[in-house]
Amino acid sequence: MAISRKVKNALNGASWVRRMFEEGEELKRIYGEENVYDFSLGNPNLEPPSSLKKALKDLAEHPITGMHRYMPNNGYSETRKAIAEYLKEESGLPFNEKHVVMTVGAAGGLNVILKALLDEGDEVIVPYPYFMEFKSYIENFGGEIRLVETNHDFSLNLSEIEKAIQAKTKAILINSPNNPTGVVYDHACIEKLGDLLKKKSKELGKNLHLITDEAYRRIVFDQIHLPIVFRFYPHTIRVTSHSKDLSLPGERIGYVAVSPLCEDVDEMMAAIVFANRTLGFVNAPALMQRLVAPLQRNSVNVREYEEKRDLFYHALTSFGYEVVKPQGAFYLFPKAPIEDDVALVKELQSKRILTVPGRGFGKPGHFRIAYAVDKKVIEGSLPGFKEVAEKYRV
Amino acid sequence: MAISRKVKNALNGASWVRRMFEEGEELKRIYGEENVYDFSLGNPNLEPPSSLKKALKDLAEHPITGMHRYMPNNGYSETRKAIAEYLKEESGLPFNEKHVVMTVGAAGGLNVILKALLDEGDEVIVPYPYFMEFKSYIENFGGEIRLVETNHDFSLNLSEIEKAIQAKTKAILINSPNNPTGVVYDHACIEKLGDLLKKKSKELGKNLHLITDEAYRRIVFDQIHLPIVFRFYPHTIRVTSHSKDLSLPGERIGYVAVSPLCEDVDEMMAAIVFANRTLGFVNAPALMQRLVAPLQRNSVNVREYEEKRDLFYHALTSFGYEVVKPQGAFYLFPKAPIEDDVALVKELQSKRILTVPGRGFGKPGHFRIAYAVDKKVIEGSLPGFKEVAEKYRV
Repeated sequence: MAISRKVKNALNGASWVRRMFEEGEELKRIYGEENVYDFSLGNPNLEPPSSLKKALKDLAEHPITGMHRYMPNNGYSETRKAIAEYLKEESGLPFNEKHVVMTVGAAGGLNVILKALLDEGDEVIVPYPYFMEFKSYIENFGGEIRLVETNHDFSLNLSEIEKAIQAKTKAILINSPNNPTGVVYDHACIEKLGDLLKKKSKELGKNLHLITDEAYRRIVFDQIHLPIVFRFYPHTIRVTSHSKDLSLPGERIGYVAVSPLCEDVDEMMAAIVFANRTLGFVNAPALMQRLVAPLQRNSVNVREYEEKRDLFYHALTSFGYEVVKPQGAFYLFPKAPIEDDVALVKELQSKRILTVPGRGFGKPGHFRIAYAVDKKVIEGSLPGFKEVAEKYRV
Repeated sequence: MAISRKVKNALNGASWVRRMFEEGEELKRIYGEENVYDFSLGNPNLEPPSSLKKALKDLAEHPITGMHRYMPNNGYSETRKAIAEYLKEESGLPFNEKHVVMTVGAAGGLNVILKALLDEGDEVIVPYPYFMEFKSYIENFGGEIRLVETNHDFSLNLSEIEKAIQAKTKAILINSPNNPTGVVYDHACIEKLGDLLKKKSKELGKNLHLITDEAYRRIVFDQIHLPIVFRFYPHTIRVTSHSKDLSLPGERIGYVAVSPLCEDVDEMMAAIVFANRTLGFVNAPALMQRLVAPLQRNSVNVREYEEKRDLFYHALTSFGYEVVKPQGAFYLFPKAPIEDDVALVKELQSKRILTVPGRGFGKPGHFRIAYAVDKKVIEGSLPGFKEVAEKYRV
């Protein structure tokens, strides 16, 4: 056989998101793109803020000599300084540029962190439903994923997490605002998690790491504030990107920041930079590093996502769907009105509506709607959602 | 311990290139940047061609809606089509867009290929001296590097390669024009390699893969033509980037192309795309994919590198250094006039000249000069090189 056995096995269990995407392409060929309501992918429909567009235009008009060359593997000092300044203000902790590594998006950042941390057999705890790529990322480095249940409202179940922590546990990976549920973990929840990790670290005689994937960190609604995880636990590593806040997912620009309070923080940074280099990322794209530096406090108009959330959530609940109201990201994760989520997704497909079955996120019996689409796509889909709800008399 | 044991061990044996770079920074602090002759890093000093700058300016002025969004994991269809067209013309083989995957530079591409190919214990043959990152890339996926000697002129030693091939061999990885030697493998050499791999594949009852890293493919001198490896062996995978030909190393844009004649090419492409996604690259940077598409036949003014090669090569040989004359890339790899290459590099440092010892490329007794620098840096360094040569009476 030509390819790796491991990869061959993984290919056989192809991602649900991808499978739905492909079936959707087929539907679009048959019915025309405008007649298909595609909620399968989380691909932001908003354009980047005008400040970014302007910065790109200025730089293209007045290029700086050497602006496309290699820079240190952790990124431009200026960009890391700007981010550290922001982190310092946000957390009150003594961040400086050495605590920040620019990465090829959050996905690149997660791989880099996991390579830096994991040895064969180390476990990483992940609450589910979850973004299933996490499993691949952890297994890339010989780690094992340990899934733990969340509460009915998809908030963290601390006692499940406590039960899961044992000698092989290296880290816990949380994602808030969450993909696929849109749920945001509140201050009390993060505080309790921090306390639990402190307690368990003491018991185990080693420091557990808290990896917080905040790719959707600026997409929050109802005027809530995302808790600053750094404040609640010293061995915290944040990974995030500008894919959603600045609508740059195709450009692969993000960063990893390690708490200045983290054990052996210098060694950790060296390990992360080493992983960034040897996994072949080398450095985050140069041009984008320069553009995002001054935009750490900017974002797309989040109210647009909030309005879509409101529209969609109210419609679906009025049709009888059971939905945890999300406070962030651009996903809804309703309960399927029948047990079989794949059958439900197929039924929605018959109405030319594309969603992803919950089992694609480790949680059968639900389905994910990615609503970073034009409002008219949402509006066009509602009769179909209603018909399906009525068929199953939710 | 906080970080991975594997990574900790690797950190202890930090890269020579990096070590030299850091010592160089120290020298620059002491003597001023303009008084240090830095040949430690292969960071192209030429700016991208004006066609690229213009394309960037046009796109920034007239942005296309959605141009920063996610696209399929293998990249834009338009970009892959443009590259396939070029490959088809160059090789005479029936390439189409499905045989091309856009990657985060050649380093990203190599990691993606190796993940797609390797299982634990598989061997990859690499002729040395070699770019030492290859070892990390291979080991990232449980593979083992099998180094084979080259001839005195750094050309491939086919009988050494033949001896090294055995049941565990999965692939051979060649790099021409070569880093660190600048040597280009000629047609006869590639043809013989292709024949050898066909013979050994038959004997072993499995198809060996030929991975050809052509990051420097357009930086060739003396009007030579780089052999098109695809023509000589069906199971060939090319990885390259636009870091050197378009001077975009910081932007991380390259591609992997698999021969249409490769065994199970569809499965191979699926594996490569899967690896690109799950290693966290997701896709090559969107903006750069768009910019490089129409520039497949363009490059920086290679004559500038050739002139530097001539200047440097003639000066060093006139001082008595023994140097294989390179026909590509922007490196010279002279024999050290004393046995200890680290001592020689330190001696050069005393003249404020930064180079990298040959052991950083698996070949002690030599040293690498990266001359992608301004001409005046080369000129300024020559008296120092001369003094060192005289000291050791080469």
